[in-house]
Order: sequence, then structure tokens, then C-alpha cells
Amino acid sequence: MRPNTVKAKWRAGEPTIGSWLSLPNSYSAEMMAHMGFDWLCVDMQHGMIDYGDAVAMLTAISTTDTIPFVRVPWNDPAIIMKVLDAGAYGVVVPLINTRADAEQAVAACRYPPEGIRSNGANRAILYAGNQGDYVSKANAEIACIPMIETKQAIENLDDILSVPGVDAIYIGPSDLSFALGLLPPRMDSDVPLHVETVARILAACRRHGVIAGIHTGGPPFSVQKVKEGFQMVTVTGDTMALARGAQAILKTQREGMGIAAAAPAASGPY
Amino acid sequence: MRPNTVKAKWRAGEPTIGSWLSLPNSYSAEMMAHMGFDWLCVDMQHGMIDYGDAVAMLTAISTTDTIPFVRVPWNDPAIIMKVLDAGAYGVVVPLINTRADAEQAVAACRYPPEGIRSNGANRAILYAGNQGDYVSKANAEIACIPMIETKQAIENLDDILSVPGVDAIYIGPSDLSFALGLLPPRMDSDVPLHVETVARILAACRRHGVIAGIHTGGPPFSVQKVKEGFQMVTVTGDTMALARGAQAILKTQREGMGIAAAAPAASGPY
Amino acid sequence: MRPNTVKAKWRAGEPTIGSWLSLPNSYSAEMMAHMGFDWLCVDMQHGMIDYGDAVAMLTAISTTDTIPFVRVPWNDPAIIMKVLDAGAYGVVVPLINTRADAEQAVAACRYPPEGIRSNGANRAILYAGNQGDYVSKANAEIACIPMIETKQAIENLDDILSVPGVDAIYIGPSDLSFALGLLPPRMDSDVPLHVETVARILAACRRHGVIAGIHTGGPPFSVQKVKEGFQMVTVTGDTMALARGAQAILKTQREGMGIAAAAPAASGPY
Amino acid sequence: MRPNTVKAKWRAGEPTIGSWLSLPNSYSAEMMAHMGFDWLCVDMQHGMIDYGDAVAMLTAISTTDTIPFVRVPWNDPAIIMKVLDAGAYGVVVPLINTRADAEQAVAACRYPPEGIRSNGANRAILYAGNQGDYVSKANAEIACIPMIETKQAIENLDDILSVPGVDAIYIGPSDLSFALGLLPPRMDSDVPLHVETVARILAACRRHGVIAGIHTGGPPFSVQKVKEGFQMVTVTGDTMALARGAQAILKTQREGMGIAAAAPAASGPY
Amino acid sequence: MRPNTVKAKWRAGEPTIGSWLSLPNSYSAEMMAHMGFDWLCVDMQHGMIDYGDAVAMLTAISTTDTIPFVRVPWNDPAIIMKVLDAGAYGVVVPLINTRADAEQAVAACRYPPEGIRSNGANRAILYAGNQGDYVSKANAEIACIPMIETKQAIENLDDILSVPGVDAIYIGPSDLSFALGLLPPRMDSDVPLHVETVARILAACRRHGVIAGIHTGGPPFSVQKVKEGFQMVTVTGDTMALARGAQAILKTQREGMGIAAAAPAASGPY
Amino acid sequence: MRPNTVKAKWRAGEPTIGSWLSLPNSYSAEMMAHMGFDWLCVDMQHGMIDYGDAVAMLTAISTTDTIPFVRVPWNDPAIIMKVLDAGAYGVVVPLINTRADAEQAVAACRYPPEGIRSNGANRAILYAGNQGDYVSKANAEIACIPMIETKQAIENLDDILSVPGVDAIYIGPSDLSFALGLLPPRMDSDVPLHVETVARILAACRRHGVIAGIHTGGPPFSVQKVKEGFQMVTVTGDTMALARGAQAILKTQREGMGIAAAAPAASGPY
Repeated sequence: MRPNTVKAKWRAGEPTIGSWLSLPNSYSAEMMAHMGFDWLCVDMQHGMIDYGDAVAMLTAISTTDTIPFVRVPWNDPAIIMKVLDAGAYGVVVPLINTRADAEQAVAACRYPPEGIRSNGANRAILYAGNQGDYVSKANAEIACIPMIETKQAIENLDDILSVPGVDAIYIGPSDLSFALGLLPPRMDSDVPLHVETVARILAACRRHGVIAGIHTGGPPFSVQKVKEGFQMVTVTGDTMALARGAQAILKTQREGMGIAAAAPAASGPY
Repeated sequence: MRPNTVKAKWRAGEPTIGSWLSLPNSYSAEMMAHMGFDWLCVDMQHGMIDYGDAVAMLTAISTTDTIPFVRVPWNDPAIIMKVLDAGAYGVVVPLINTRADAEQAVAACRYPPEGIRSNGANRAILYAGNQGDYVSKANAEIACIPMIETKQAIENLDDILSVPGVDAIYIGPSDLSFALGLLPPRMDSDVPLHVETVARILAACRRHGVIAGIHTGGPPFSVQKVKEGFQMVTVTGDTMALARGAQAILKTQREGMGIAAAAPAASGPY
Repeated sequence: MRPNTVKAKWRAGEPTIGSWLSLPNSYSAEMMAHMGFDWLCVDMQHGMIDYGDAVAMLTAISTTDTIPFVRVPWNDPAIIMKVLDAGAYGVVVPLINTRADAEQAVAACRYPPEGIRSNGANRAILYAGNQGDYVSKANAEIACIPMIETKQAIENLDDILSVPGVDAIYIGPSDLSFALGLLPPRMDSDVPLHVETVARILAACRRHGVIAGIHTGGPPFSVQKVKEGFQMVTVTGDTMALARGAQAILKTQREGMGIAAAAPAASGPY
Repeated sequence: MRPNTVKAKWRAGEPTIGSWLSLPNSYSAEMMAHMGFDWLCVDMQHGMIDYGDAVAMLTAISTTDTIPFVRVPWNDPAIIMKVLDAGAYGVVVPLINTRADAEQAVAACRYPPEGIRSNGANRAILYAGNQGDYVSKANAEIACIPMIETKQAIENLDDILSVPGVDAIYIGPSDLSFALGLLPPRMDSDVPLHVETVARILAACRRHGVIAGIHTGGPPFSVQKVKEGFQMVTVTGDTMALARGAQAILKTQREGMGIAAAAPAASGPY
Repeated sequence: MRPNTVKAKWRAGEPTIGSWLSLPNSYSAEMMAHMGFDWLCVDMQHGMIDYGDAVAMLTAISTTDTIPFVRVPWNDPAIIMKVLDAGAYGVVVPLINTRADAEQAVAACRYPPEGIRSNGANRAILYAGNQGDYVSKANAEIACIPMIETKQAIENLDDILSVPGVDAIYIGPSDLSFALGLLPPRMDSDVPLHVETVARILAACRRHGVIAGIHTGGPPFSVQKVKEGFQMVTVTGDTMALARGAQAILKTQREGMGIAAAAPAASGPY
Repeated sequence: MRPNTVKAKWRAGEPTIGSWLSLPNSYSAEMMAHMGFDWLCVDMQHGMIDYGDAVAMLTAISTTDTIPFVRVPWNDPAIIMKVLDAGAYGVVVPLINTRADAEQAVAACRYPPEGIRSNGANRAILYAGNQGDYVSKANAEIACIPMIETKQAIENLDDILSVPGVDAIYIGPSDLSFALGLLPPRMDSDVPLHVETVARILAACRRHGVIAGIHTGGPPFSVQKVKEGFQMVTVTGDTMALARGAQAILKTQREGMGIAAAAPAASGPY
């Protein structure tokens, strides 16, 4: 089975850098896959992406060595199993609140006896190299990555992190803002309560030998997170890079032409 | 945030007229959006429509001022959040039976602290005007519309209608027929038990300050419902209008040619 | 090979009634196919339809006995052969101006030695019944239908109609208006010059034993055309039926509610 | 309503032979539908197939008399109802563990009062023949087919099989291997425990008057299963037939050229 | 008819700024449409975009006031008419070499008597506002924009620019490099022969009252072109903005982490 | 630039074995790409495949080392350039009749000064490795492969084969049957005139140093062709392998069950 190089780096104590994909498009996914990220995460939760799009994007990513992850819309075994069968090497599961939630997410990611994943991988076997060992090795190679982003999850941190098979957790800083009562929700928050909570999650991860991951708005915040010990750091996304890139160019053009720049897009899907 | 003109009309005590969309197609959706309905509802429950189709149709509707609603297939937070992120300004949720069901539907439609909606709107932010206020205003602008169509729901009417955040309810008259043991199921029913039940739901809506909505087979029944006080009335659907329109033309043609008309399609997906 | 029942009716001197399809959608095509038209024409020229859509629509039509035609965007052998391989039983070819144009259209529709169609039908063989006789019978069963709609074509009428393999011709009355200098272009024209030209084309068809076809806006004009001897008459289209049907319902609803109807859509894609 | 010829054969005590479909493609589905299988099963669980693909494939199958089944990804009423509305005549439901699971699967397949299916079939009505009797006859014609493939299911066999409305059950031999602790999971297993368990399920089916179905790797195992009394036997799948067919041809070619054949694909999605 | 604000600016002597779209995706197109470009050009020549993609993208652009252009793959009346019927307000036609080429491009863009465009706009009528005046005004509002990028075209410059109906021309600097024997082909070239040729084309445009347009790699080159008098300037593209944006972020991240940046992508589809 | 291993084998005097792809599907293409063929040819002429499908299939093939070819529908520079920009490493061009036809096909495949290909490769640059050398090396690496299958082509054999840039020719034996007046058209023909003509083409290829290619129905005919010196031999196709594979399994099953096999599909799209 083609090794999951992200999990290998995690075991070696190294950080991994990735990008989010929200455009339902295989060509943009393929472009991103050629840039050298360790992994790309197809976002089926908030991205405009359904299963057919995800299959096309996983295929596009498979033209490179970049490891494909998928964020599923919900902690639902049906879709978790479907994206694994389609070749995802990691699954990010949103809104995990309890130990039972985490156990359910893990179970969907693992063949028996560790879990309940149904046998019948299709594209995954091709992606893995078609060597006859997918079923025996997938439980070890596939990353199961619950998200920590709710009040309940913070209360149940040790419970969740001690579930066998939780390879990493992923902090959604914006929903975490909501959870902490910090409005408006923000990425890269410097509000002390937010900072402390993130630190507390990181410390708990270390305690449990679980990889800590976090979504960021990019450098330098993302660099700082790596230095703190996060080994799974999202530094951008396709929509963010596209929107910011195009806006910057248009702004420069307008300034060059002596046109007052239009008010920048306030928040954007970025 | 672009205002939800349907909710504004509801607040002003005015009726709103809409159409159902069952064809998985952006061009027919765009044609319908240009006709002047107050809202269009993309039917992901019974329509031949999946998420990718819905995104394309929401985009097509967004070329006009017609407000886009989506009926989701099930009271499932995952798909409710996904259609909201794609720009739906109202969600019709089928088969709500209990107060807990209604609370779950509302929670999926609202950001914390009112609900559990996860932060990460994408296309919705563009549709809303990209002014940086989507997260703060969406809870007030988005319409949450549980369906009342089962025996349990009728028994729990006050419970459901008193859930904060239920903006409107929508009667599915055909499933309501089933619920009342009236076979075959019908729209525009004049069976006394059906009529009384609809009246009872309308009265309860008034009591709770909740907008009453209903699916109809078109005028004059739909006009009557407006006069009774329904403020959300479906008067046709894309498949219904297409099928009836084409059948009528073909019948006229055949009669003009002296051909006995073929037996009309008995029920149709119409 | 499944017989082309439209050509059989033509040979028997009977009229055939059809509808245009402009929505790129298999479900609306399947609905239309169930209504009892003799044929349906997938419009790749003006419809929002590309080749992938056409294949899906041809498949949907094949669930019934309605015969599938395709109007190609241009007199281009590449696309003519592609739609035939996909199962079209008739090809409407726009903007035929000369005998050479007509010969080229016919050649693309016929296997050697009659034409230059390349061997390799795929879906067409399934649709035809997979009996091993498609290649030997297709030349006789497939209808080649040039359009007559330009000034040049009217000048070259006998030249075009005498090309062997031209089964029928199809009048585009709107482009014919342009050709005759009658603005704005109209269907169902009663301008004498237009009426006379249509009659002249019909007479020429009779002279050459070629079936006459015409696009109409529906009854009673379309009934009149049948009575005059047109054997291929389009009485509606999916977009026309949908738009007119929905507009009529909305108008009735508004009138019932005492709302002044909005100005009707002026021309529409209908 | 178009009769479900598979259920008719089952009632007549006859076996039915089918194939699995895992390619998200209407043309391959149409090719398979022309081969003479009694039924084809669109696999939304392990196939690379989402709802839009399934609709296209059901349409393609409807060009023939082959009966369309769908395996849904999960025992979820939302997707069961959606595929029924799209025209599936049978639903295979994976991972049924308990009587309650089976009751839920049946309920989603049946209109009230037998179940909770919501009224609003669309394409299904066209496929059924559009005769106005779909709602009254669908409960009897649609096949509900829970899968037996887990330890729990084997323990609850009589409970599951005695649920009214369970027409057939379907053994997933590979997941059953997992359930029995037999690794690696296999189809066509000759391990005594597996063989005995399959026999035990078959015997229980007979006891309850439920049709027994099983997935196989093809003849002669599949022939043997028919002889034992299985009336629903899968003999191949589109991916399996394609992969094995192409591999065999390539191997023959290479041997003819004197090239040592490359190691065959070890397991494949086949 | 909705006015073509780009042509209005051209008439007023003002420059217009646009972006290229090469991703076959409606969501990225909609994001770009919200940024404030005067126009966006859907690139069907070099983009990964076919007709179905283009329709979806034109729809997405129509949610804003940004004017939609399409570059067709070839000077082919069939595709020019198809994109106009789908709502394009301008058509960029590559590889125009002669006066006859330019006349053919113009003819495809204009209804008779100015041209040969066939009557039957569909989506275009909706986009234009459905006011019944599309056919009478489209010839004036639609922009026809031949590309000047070959040796022959430079030789025939006055011939091409004097064709009535040529609203603007568009310089493809990279193919122009080829034409001038300057390898490797470049945008934003400062090679004297290239610079002089561009200047010569601009001067010829002025002489003939034709708008001059040019593709650039962005500011400051694009600002310079505006200052020189180009009124149609492309400053970026979706793939360029995405790729450069993501590469810059990844580079910053790696530098922050002390990792030697991987060699940057050499040329890219950017 | 990623080398074209097929052209390398040709230069080394080695044969290459490939398969045809007619299913518009990326997953079947990916499966085929994993089997070890030297090349796969996406058939846009007779396959049910349009440009969007081709891009998805090229992406899927790019997950392996198998070299992607495309057969275009026609000798049309627009589509030839589009598939090259999408990453095809070889283009098979049907129905080449004359030296001028061949020169036009070559010109579309080559950047100036050798040809007229427009600069703007997108996906092709990613596939080629994104090393900045695509434009300078593509002319040498891309294979241009005219088809020889008409009477005219046979008459003009030396003219066609002597066109610089013709890397290989490909015999379509079925259309060649038509050309020779041998009906019905056949692959793997043993009719002397057909055999002699194929031999004559092979001899001419040798004379001109052009690679000879041929479509076959599989071994042993395809083995024989390799032995004769053909270096580009198609041994199967996705539809052929699928149909024959499934038919054989179903036949075996029925025989095992004692059922008279249904008459086999007569010709099929196989």
C-alpha cells in the first residue's frame, strides 16, 4: 500500500503543511497538488463540493505525491466510508463533542475488528497501488482526524483524545470562537481566552500522543503554530488564495490608474 | 446583508407566492426566477436534485431578486448547513414530528449561541452582498420552515410552533392525507377532515405568530389559501407547469387534426 | 434495427407531431418523451445543450417509443456523426444554402458508399436493438433533414431538394423572416411574402417527393400546417411550454389576489 | 404500474441473476442493461456513485426491461426515499443489525400506513408507466432488501427476517468474513464457518418465506448458490467484468509477444 | 436590453479592466464577478472549459454587473452563435488572419442583414432583461473582438480593422512572439520588435476607430498599457491569481519554518 | 518535460500496446490506466465522450505512467489544440485524405514555426512536470497520428506519409473495409484485398520512416500485427472488454443453470 507520508512525518515528529480546497473543480485541485503541500483537504462541509466533485478532485490530487484528505460534512459513517473508498487517506470529521462521537468517527475509518468499515474499496485500491494489501494496511495508514471546536468538545477533551485510533485532532478556530462566546468568530485569534484554549488543546494532544492540527489564515500565524508544535497546519485555501490574489492585483491596477480602489470585499468566502 | 424580502413581506403581513423546482437544471431555474415569483424552492427531497444541482440552481436564481429556498431531503443538520452555505435564504424541512425535531431544524439554521451552525459560509456570503455582516445577520434573515404533514406533528402542533426560530411552517397536503388516513393522497383536498385540519394548523400558526405556508395545485385553490391567511403559497412547480403546458398543447393539436386524444397521463410527476 | 416510425409515417403519407427540447436535462426530456409526441428534437443549435447533455437526453427519450432527433449547431460532419453514434434517428441541419451544403449533410448521415459516415456507432447500436444490422440499415432508417431558412436556400430550392438522401426539409420561419427582410423575425407569420414563400417551399417539396417540415408557435397555426400537407410539425418546446404554463398560472394567481399582473415577459426564450 | 418482474419470479420460486454497477456512468449501465440480466444494482455504497449518477443510470436501465435496484450507502430514510422517487424498484440496505434497523428500512420503502415514505414520486411515476396507480401499488411492487453481513445481524436473524415487508435479504460475503473473524475478507469463501453461516442464513430465509440473495465472484460459485436455493444472485459487476476482461486480453497479447506478463493486479476494485 | 457597459465605456473613451477565466467552475467565476472587474472572459480556447461549463459560468457572472465575454476556440460561427445565445456580451475570436476571417467573425455575431446569426437566443434574452428588444439591439450591444496575433494578421492590419462591426481587437502577446520569431513566447515583452509591433497595432486601431485590447501579466505592465491608450486590458486570470497566490503563501510559510523553498514552478498554467 | 515513453519506444523500434476508451468516465479510465498498457486513447470520435469528459479522463490516466492519446472527432485545429492543452501526448486524427489534410493536422499539433498551435497550454504543463520547457519540447514529444482509412488516403499514401511531423499513422480497418468496397465493414479482416492493403500501408510506412498503427479486435490478430512490424496496436477497448466480459460470465451462469443462453448480442458497441 502506498504509504501515507503525512502519517510518516507525524511519527517522525515533523510538521505537515496543507491547504483547504473549496472549489468543486478537479483542475484547481490538480494545480494545488503540484505546488508542494504535504496534503490537501477537500472540504465537503463548507466547500461547494459534493461526492462526485470529491472523487474528481481526489483523482486530480493522485497525479502527484500530495496526500489527499477530505473533511466530511458530518460525523456520518456513510459519507466517511464513501470518501475512504474513493481514495482519501485522511478524514477530518467536524463537530465532535464526546467520546462516543470520536469512537463513531474512528469506527467508520477502520475495518473490523477495529471498526465497522464495510469492505469494498474501489478507487482507494488503485490509489494505494493495487498490491493486494489495502484491507490489511488501511487501518494503520488512514488518518482519522476529529475536529475540536465546540464547548462540549473542550469539556470532553481527554475523553476524546484517549479514543484509540484518533490520529490527530483539528481545531476549527472560527467555530471555537463561537464556542467560547467570542463574536464575531475569527481565525488567527489573539483574544486571550482563545489563545489559552488553543494552547490547552495542544497540551492535551501532547499528553495523549495525538497530533495537533489547526486551521489558520496563513503566515505568520501559521508559522507560529508550527513552532508551538502543531504538526498539521492549514496555511491557505483555494478560494482564499484566489480571492486575495485577484483582489491585490486589481487594487494595484486601479491605483496605477489613479482610481480610488473600491471598498475591498469585507469578509469574502475566503 | 441582502435582505430577505420574503421575511420582510411576512413581517408586513403580506402573502408571498412561490414555485417549486424539481428539474435538476440551472436554465429552467433561471427562467422561473425571471417570472416574478417571490421565492422559488429547490426541492432536494422529491425533486431529481442533488447538492451540485442545487448549487447551480441557487446561482441561477441569484441572477434575479427572487428569494431562493431549498427543501432538504431530511431533518439533517449536515445538508441544512450545506444549502445555507450555498446561499439558500430559507430551508423547508420535511417530516417534523416533535418539538425536538423542530429545535434540531432551527439549531442547524442558526449560528451560536442560537444554534449550532458551523461558521464557513461560502457562496452565501457572495449572494448576501459580501459586506462583512453575514454572520451577524444570517440568524435573523434566514427562514426556517418545518413541514407539518404527519399525525405526530398534528398532535404536537403547539409544541412545534412554539419553538423559537420557527419562522413559518409548511403544510404538505398530500402527506397530510396519508396522516389522516385519506387515500389516495391529494393536494387541494376538499375532504372535510383535511380541510378542518388545515384550518386548525392555520389557527395554531396565528396563535403562535408563525407564518402559515401550504403546497397547492394552483389557482383557484391557491388564491383561496391566500385569502384565508396563508402567507407562503406554492402555486405551481417547474415539472407541473411543463407537463400540463405541453399536454394541453398536444391535446389541442390532436383535436385540431381530428385525432382522438390519447388518454391523458394519469397522475404524472406533476 | 428498431424501425424509424417517423419515416414510416412519412412514407404512409401521415403527419408527425413533435416538440423541441432546449433544456439541457434528461428528466425534462424523459417527461416530454412520455407525452406521446411522434418525435422530439434535441436542439444543439439554440438550446443550452452540448454533446454530453444530448447523450443523456437521447438516453432518456429511449425509455419510450418517441423517436429522437437532434438539431446540430452547424452543417459539420463531426457533430452529425457524433449524434448519430449516440442514437439520433434524425438530424436537422441548420443554414443549408446550396446543393453542396445539402450533399455534405447527407454524406455525413450515410455510411459508404452513399456517404462518408465513419463506422463505429456506439449507443446507436443499443438503441437500434443490437441485432447486428445497424450498419446495413442505418442509411435507410436515419432521417436527414436540412433546414431551409436563408435567401440562398430559397434561390437554390430545387437544387437542394433534388439531392438524394434528403428525406425532409425543415423551415425555420424566424430566420426565414430575416431572409425575406421581414423584421422583426416571427414564427407563425401571416405576412403575405412569408406565407407565399412557405407555400412555395411546400410545393417544391411535393415536386421532389421530400417531406416538408416547419417550426410553429403551436395550434391553431400548427394544425393549419398539417392540413396544408406538412408532415413534420413542431407544436411546442420544453422552454415554451414551461414558460407559458408558469406565466399563465402566476397571472391567474395574481388576478385572483387582486394584484395588477406584472407586465408579461416580452419575448422570452419561449 | 409496470410490474416488478423480479418479485414476480421470486413469487414463482425462480432465481434471478443480476450484476453490480460501480461505474458512475449511464452508458456502461445501458450496455449492461442490454445483456439480459434480470436486475442491475446501482451501488451507491461502495461504487463511485452519487445521487445524480444514480438518476442517470436508472434512466439508462429504463431503456430496457431489466429491473433497477439501488444499494444505498446507509440505512437512511432520506436516501432510500430519494432513490425510490428516482425509479428504483428495489433497495438493498447495508449493515442491518437489528429488528429495529430492518423496520426502519422497510418503513422508508413503504407509503403509509405500512411505512413513512413521503408522497412525491417523480421519475418513478414515469418509469412505472404513468398510469395513476403508483402510490397504491408501489408498496407491493418495490423490493426491500436488507443486507445480512454483521455479527449482530446473525444473532438477530429471526428478528430481522420476521419483519413484515422484508422481501429478501442479501448476504455480503466479504463483510460477513469480517463478522466471522475470517481474514482477509473474501467472496466465494469455502471456509467451513463461512459456508455454514451462509447455509444457516439460507435456512432461516426459507423458514420466514424471505428470498435469499448473495454477492458472488461469478460462476461456478454463483451457479452453486442458485442450486442451493438463492433466488437473488449477483454474478459479476461492471468494474469486475471490465478489469478481468481487459487484463486477460493484455496478458494474452503479451504472451503472444513473448513478454513476461506483468504481475497481475493483486486485488483490484474488481 | 441590458446595456453593455463595457461598450459604453469604450464609446466614452474610458479603459476597461478584466480578468481571464480558465477554471471550468461556476463558483470561482462568481467569486471573480464580485471583485469589480469591468468584464470577465471565459476562455474556451485555452481554458479547460467546454460549452456546458461556459453556460454555468455565464450564469454565475450574471449574478453581478460584470459584463461576460467569451473567447471561443476558433473562428467558427457555430460556437460563436452558441455562446451569444447563452448570454455572452462579447466574443473574442482567436487567430484572425485576413479581412475575410474578420468578416466571418463579425457575421456570426450579427443578425441579418448585418450578419448571419440565426434567431433563437435563449439564455441571452433572460440576461438582457427579457424586454422584447434583444433581437433589435443585440447587433449594437454585442462586442466582436478579433485577435491580432499572427504574421498574416499584422500584414493585413488595415484590412482587418476596417471591417465594419469589428468593435475591438485583442492582442495575444505570446502568440505574437511566435509570429515575430521571438522565442520563447512571452507576455509583457520588452523586446523592441514586440514593443514596436504592439505600438503599431495600437496606432492602427486609433486610425480605424477600433478599440485596442491586450493580454498582460498584470501591473505595472497592464497599467502602462492603459496609459498608452489600450481600453481593454486583462490584468490577471483565475488560474494565475490562484497559483501565484498559493505559491507565495507556501513560500512564506516555508521560509518562516526555515525550509529552503522548493524550486518555484517554472512556468505554470498561470 | 515528462518524456513521451511511447515515442521513445517507437524510436527504439519497439512495439506499443494500447486500449481504446469509449466510456465517458474517469474511474474506468483510471482502472484501465493501472493495467499496464503503454498508452490509452480517449476516443472523442465514436466514443460517447465530449471535451469535459476527456479532461477528466486525461486527469485519471495521469495518475499512472500510461501515456494519454486522444482521437479527435475531426481534423479540426480547434479541438486538436484543446486536447493538447488538456494534456494529450498524442492525437489520432480521423479521415485524413490528402497531403493538405495531413499538413493541417500536423500544424495544429506544433507550435510555430513548425505549426500554428496557439500558446497557452494549461493542464498539459502540469502533466508535463511544470519545468518550464513544455513550449520548447512539445513539438518533439507530442505524437501526431493521422488515420488512413479512405480510398483517397490510400491513393495519396506517399503524399501523406512524407509530411514532416507525421509520427505515425493509424489504420481504421473497419472504415478501410468501406473504402475497399468490402461490406460489412470488419476489424481483423482476412479478405485478401484488405490484407494486401494493410500490408501496402505498412510497407509505405517503412519506406517513409513512419510508425504504423492499427486497430484490432484483440489477440491473436493483434499479436500477428506486432510481428509484422506494427508498433502501435490497439488490442481492446473499455466497452469491448466490459461487454465481452459480462456476456461471457452471464452465458456461463446460464449454462450452469441449464438455461438456453439468449442469443448473444449481435454486434454491439464492442
